[in-house]
Amino acid sequence: MTILSCPLPLPATERIVLAHGGGGRLTNQLIESVFLPAFRNSALESRHDGAVLSARGVQLAMTTDTYIVQPLVFPGGTIGDLAVNGTVNDLAMCGAQPIALSAGFVLEEGLSLNTLHAIVASMRDAARLSNVSVVTGDTKVLDKGRGDGLFINTAGIGVVVAPDPVGASAVRPGDAVIVSGDIGSHGIAVLSVREGLEFDGEVRSDTAPVWSAVESLFNAGIEVHCLRDLTRGGLSSALNEIASVARLNIEVEENLVPVSDVVRGACELLGLDPFYVANEGRFVAFVPEYAATHALEVLRSHPVASGAVHAGTVHEAPSALVTLRTRVGGNRVLDMLSGEQLPRIC
Amino acid sequence: MTILSCPLPLPATERIVLAHGGGGRLTNQLIESVFLPAFRNSALESRHDGAVLSARGVQLAMTTDTYIVQPLVFPGGTIGDLAVNGTVNDLAMCGAQPIALSAGFVLEEGLSLNTLHAIVASMRDAARLSNVSVVTGDTKVLDKGRGDGLFINTAGIGVVVAPDPVGASAVRPGDAVIVSGDIGSHGIAVLSVREGLEFDGEVRSDTAPVWSAVESLFNAGIEVHCLRDLTRGGLSSALNEIASVARLNIEVEENLVPVSDVVRGACELLGLDPFYVANEGRFVAFVPEYAATHALEVLRSHPVASGAVHAGTVHEAPSALVTLRTRVGGNRVLDMLSGEQLPRIC
Repeated sequence: MTILSCPLPLPATERIVLAHGGGGRLTNQLIESVFLPAFRNSALESRHDGAVLSARGVQLAMTTDTYIVQPLVFPGGTIGDLAVNGTVNDLAMCGAQPIALSAGFVLEEGLSLNTLHAIVASMRDAARLSNVSVVTGDTKVLDKGRGDGLFINTAGIGVVVAPDPVGASAVRPGDAVIVSGDIGSHGIAVLSVREGLEFDGEVRSDTAPVWSAVESLFNAGIEVHCLRDLTRGGLSSALNEIASVARLNIEVEENLVPVSDVVRGACELLGLDPFYVANEGRFVAFVPEYAATHALEVLRSHPVASGAVHAGTVHEAPSALVTLRTRVGGNRVLDMLSGEQLPRIC
Repeated sequence: MTILSCPLPLPATERIVLAHGGGGRLTNQLIESVFLPAFRNSALESRHDGAVLSARGVQLAMTTDTYIVQPLVFPGGTIGDLAVNGTVNDLAMCGAQPIALSAGFVLEEGLSLNTLHAIVASMRDAARLSNVSVVTGDTKVLDKGRGDGLFINTAGIGVVVAPDPVGASAVRPGDAVIVSGDIGSHGIAVLSVREGLEFDGEVRSDTAPVWSAVESLFNAGIEVHCLRDLTRGGLSSALNEIASVARLNIEVEENLVPVSDVVRGACELLGLDPFYVANEGRFVAFVPEYAATHALEVLRSHPVASGAVHAGTVHEAPSALVTLRTRVGGNRVLDMLSGEQLPRIC
């Protein structure tokens, strides 16, 4: 065996690197190598945006996210909006009506109380918009230099209204892939203010609650197989996670996925791919082919999903790949994000 | 009015200071001036360790805490134990059986994966001990120098088993004040390793789940008016919060509250008061006088509460004070913690 002991450098992954938080390949490796083996249970193993559990016969969804975005305020939103909308949306992705949130604040010594007031006000407004209450909270303070202004964790509870399980394992060959609107605005909005970039036209974060749109799908009796929001790692990572759990191929038409001109321009300038850029008010829905037109009609009646499109289809395939039919007629594999495009994006 | 405009320095409280996270007076001011006005709802206003809410007729408790303790590993526990036990205990204080936890990790770039593995293993063990599952999670990574190794947020859901509401507003004159064991070990254990202090004898954190002991009180049919764990701010701050909500006077006998010799010695050496030092496996229970002996018997049958004592009584009084009858026969007001004794203690 000594033949193999050549002096390789230690793998980077013996220590945490930024990409472990990027929502792509390394995040998945961390989940699979550290968290899943320790906490093994069926809810975690479904690898969804939240867990569905039963409490005395009532189906509940539970989810959590910590927000570390920099800067705290950006065009179209604040860390407070994100903290409420993100958790509301994760519950929505479980087919659950959000009912209560918790909020855990980690403040850095020296943070201005005015800043805290403004962030909390944006959380209040976002919570009202989603008709959800922040029922419990916690505040910790880090000594100056040990934190970075303000981090917020929110966890949420929802009541499941979906009649059947919603998740990657319910995806079927033939399902239509619906993308709820144009992609990439959140990531580019945060990046623009962080880097002091100006583009041709303002880019505002798409942060928004999507439950009302999702609820309408259920109210309309549409058979919803899977829902996933397109946060860290973007559309591409979300589709890859679903393909991998469902063990099916997902084919998307590049032409059909809306990207605004300003986001496309910014991505070209910066060498980013909009399919990997984070969104905070966009999701993908998998419905049977026959229900696609009805689902689009229902979604488009909500401002948050007015740009919904039928962008692709699920196929039986042993490879569990996500493939993109490109503008020029070719095919390329849309891999999971490896590395980290934009740290501190949510 | 200009007479009053002398050049006073800006009050320290226009910026966040460490004491805003200390669980004492400034934490309460922050809650009352920032969080309560924004998120106003009855659950938050009860000022309990968690919220009780109804989901389709099932009474649930929800709670959250972020853990920022330094160092991550200390005698008797780790940040991982704390993150599980602390949230399990907050649910227990709502009279609720813990059923599910979420875990939000904020990792600093460069954290060793071995450290993360060890912390996660301690969470797994703590969760097993409390028969609770970590059902959903989130991982974020901060660039090096922007975090401090590892922060963990846990939120928890429990099913309320208490037949009547448990909380400060249910406390009645004549109630017995039961303290579940000796106080101050957690704070002194963390401080000892942080400051490299050695005392006469090892001090180990008291971190432990208390639900089994609390559940036994309900199973025994004991009328439990209020439960509160003695974390940040210690016994003194917990009693002050309860006195203030109940608008009653709480009188405690200093002699009767157990403090181990080594904790007492360390506190004398360091100028700390054990009544203000944090605990992670201790709580106070308010029960009617007639039930006190029975409650003590039940609690003492559990290792985690084997040192339970009847340490005081609730009195009708307009002042809502906590008074301590001291060893030498005098009385002193046990005020809420002002300032911060031990930052980064949980």
